[in-house]
Amino acid sequence: MIELLTIGDELLSGRTADTNAHFIARELTEAGLSATRFSSVGDQPEAIRRALTTLLPDTRFVIATGGLGPTDDDLTASAVAATFGRELVVSEAAIANMERRYREFGRPMPDAAKKQAVLPQGCEAIDNPVGTACGFMIQDGQRQFFFLPGVPEEVHAMTGFIIEHIRAYCGMRQIIKSRTLKVFGLWESKIQELLKGRLPELPAVALGYYPSFPEVSLKITATGSDEEQIEQELQLFQAAIQACIGEYIYSENNEPLEEVVGRLLAGRKATLAVAESCTGGLITHRLTNVAGSSAYVERSFIVYSNMAKQELLAVPEAVLAGHGAVSEPVARLMAEGARQAAGTTYGLSVTGIAGPDGGTPEKPVGTVFIGVAAPDETMVKKMFYPGTREKVKMMTSQMALNLLRLALLGNTRESGLKKF
Amino acid sequence: MIELLTIGDELLSGRTADTNAHFIARELTEAGLSATRFSSVGDQPEAIRRALTTLLPDTRFVIATGGLGPTDDDLTASAVAATFGRELVVSEAAIANMERRYREFGRPMPDAAKKQAVLPQGCEAIDNPVGTACGFMIQDGQRQFFFLPGVPEEVHAMTGFIIEHIRAYCGMRQIIKSRTLKVFGLWESKIQELLKGRLPELPAVALGYYPSFPEVSLKITATGSDEEQIEQELQLFQAAIQACIGEYIYSENNEPLEEVVGRLLAGRKATLAVAESCTGGLITHRLTNVAGSSAYVERSFIVYSNMAKQELLAVPEAVLAGHGAVSEPVARLMAEGARQAAGTTYGLSVTGIAGPDGGTPEKPVGTVFIGVAAPDETMVKKMFYPGTREKVKMMTSQMALNLLRLALLGNTRESGLKKF
Repeated sequence: MIELLTIGDELLSGRTADTNAHFIARELTEAGLSATRFSSVGDQPEAIRRALTTLLPDTRFVIATGGLGPTDDDLTASAVAATFGRELVVSEAAIANMERRYREFGRPMPDAAKKQAVLPQGCEAIDNPVGTACGFMIQDGQRQFFFLPGVPEEVHAMTGFIIEHIRAYCGMRQIIKSRTLKVFGLWESKIQELLKGRLPELPAVALGYYPSFPEVSLKITATGSDEEQIEQELQLFQAAIQACIGEYIYSENNEPLEEVVGRLLAGRKATLAVAESCTGGLITHRLTNVAGSSAYVERSFIVYSNMAKQELLAVPEAVLAGHGAVSEPVARLMAEGARQAAGTTYGLSVTGIAGPDGGTPEKPVGTVFIGVAAPDETMVKKMFYPGTREKVKMMTSQMALNLLRLALLGNTRESGLKKF
Repeated sequence: MIELLTIGDELLSGRTADTNAHFIARELTEAGLSATRFSSVGDQPEAIRRALTTLLPDTRFVIATGGLGPTDDDLTASAVAATFGRELVVSEAAIANMERRYREFGRPMPDAAKKQAVLPQGCEAIDNPVGTACGFMIQDGQRQFFFLPGVPEEVHAMTGFIIEHIRAYCGMRQIIKSRTLKVFGLWESKIQELLKGRLPELPAVALGYYPSFPEVSLKITATGSDEEQIEQELQLFQAAIQACIGEYIYSENNEPLEEVVGRLLAGRKATLAVAESCTGGLITHRLTNVAGSSAYVERSFIVYSNMAKQELLAVPEAVLAGHGAVSEPVARLMAEGARQAAGTTYGLSVTGIAGPDGGTPEKPVGTVFIGVAAPDETMVKKMFYPGTREKVKMMTSQMALNLLRLALLGNTRESGLKKF
């Protein structure tokens, strides 16, 4: 059994949220292991000692983070030494790790940093590939304890070593492979319903659900000793999921939607202009989070006012007055107007009511029209997603990017949207 | 002493990050209390029992979340009953809480929901003002245990009651008042340095630092029994902070920067157009996250290409060719062009290199020019913030909104920016 321990006054005071336990737990789960308990305590030697001596009876491994830095309130190493009756000694391996880091940083090693190399006697240093404070592992009776610094980037870089160590120690010689499918247009419970009884019986393959508004990631993990067989099982499982909900899967490679859309645009040497009303820039913000997006994002128009819609996108005043700014014809004219004005291959538009005010009985908050102007045709889709302003904006940006993706794939049935 | 316990298999598998312990810890700290240990365990009765019976010797209060829902894997109530040797009985108070909630939702109460009203005998129900599952508190020996559902919104709504209960129980009759100052332009360590030895000696006043890129929140908390005196001490403390770093404080009321800027624009009946290049829409996205922003955000131009800068903002081709798109003259012309084209009171512009590519020795990644065109003058500021694409975008949006804020306040010394 494995327990996790996070150490730091900043955790107990609520000043910092602990992300290390969550990260390590997820890595353990994906490696076919699992944690039985997490604990967090402050930076007091007595609190650390108590945590290390009140473990569950069956615990064999303890992974701890925090309190290994150079300052006076980093007390983990000395608390561990006191708990297990060890001397504190200078670890040559830890000194070497620090010297290597400072050389890479191009800075001399300050004397104060050397405190980080003072570790309990008999422990083994764990190399820290990104920071100066190395970790260490120590055996006490039947238990192995691993101590890492608290900096999340360093924990991310060092957890793999610990997991490999535990797996090897326990004789888990299996290979693990995984793949992450990104799903939009179905919530978790609906996916479960659609997949129920439709997946192959493969005991070595596990499926994990990770919902993150407005989408769900499905992680397929296969374990075994034969790499080829694992790959086959992974593909078999993935094919079964594809057969059930394929039209809702926009990436089989864990990419964000804006990256998929960007890849499709770049691959077709196509360019894009967006006309955003209710999303207020969020769609283009997401698109331009992708490095290299200047190759296809030509410009965008954030047309909050009716005047802007008229002047920049040539939406006639009469259409705005007759149908209202949030309407099918306006979304159509906005998409076409953006494409025309910018001279791009595609135009994408959204116009809607993000709330909290501005809703009417006919067009309540969450009513949005999305338009995609392609070279040969324009399609417009109405969506309704009641929620907070923030959620309406996010959902609208996701729907718009997905509609563009489907248009780029030549799929104008918009199947991925029919559930909304 | 207080311990926190979060219950749920989804926490141990790393599927969900625990935010409840962090939230409750912060609330406790602000109420003058503190947690001594957090633990997380899975949804197994035995794991819950062990957690409840292996508390630290001095623990008097335990606040637990999770496992109170209607489904079969919600086992907290029955595990608690078994641990403390109580019968499970239907709680009338819990039934009343549920009926009230379902009435508000306008839906009939399903029979399955009634499981949530089956609680250990002798416990006291804790009203849940936002969900159907009420919480409960139970006394065992010298200890008081509080159990809440795991849904974060419900925890947020119910924690106040528990804190009041603990404070009253311990005879903490003090009043607590707090104020949050938002600081931009100084990192935490610099703020500490500037405040060192400059704050009044008021033992009943505490200062908490909550950094969140690219800004820092300073929370001043004062406790005491005399409301007037607390208010005075709070003001004295705040005034001392203002005297040291006042020019970096953009809100004394915990508002986000986009809300402060929006309030200033609305108060002056001024309108705004933004010309965004490297931020790709993020500035306007932030501005339009504020409800009612359509009153002052007229339109924005996301001008990723040089052609867009020419066509939409009338930046002459010769200036772009002569100085480059990332330059002082182009930022100036973009801000003025946006103001002119949209007919707004203010124009705000950014042009820079967000990276990871596109940097040169003269203009490395992170070089950005920001322009503010006001009715009477235009000011341009150069900034340099090397970092990831995401951080350059975020820092640029923050700098731009802050520069606009200073212009709206008539402060063209740009003092709040001089550190970057």
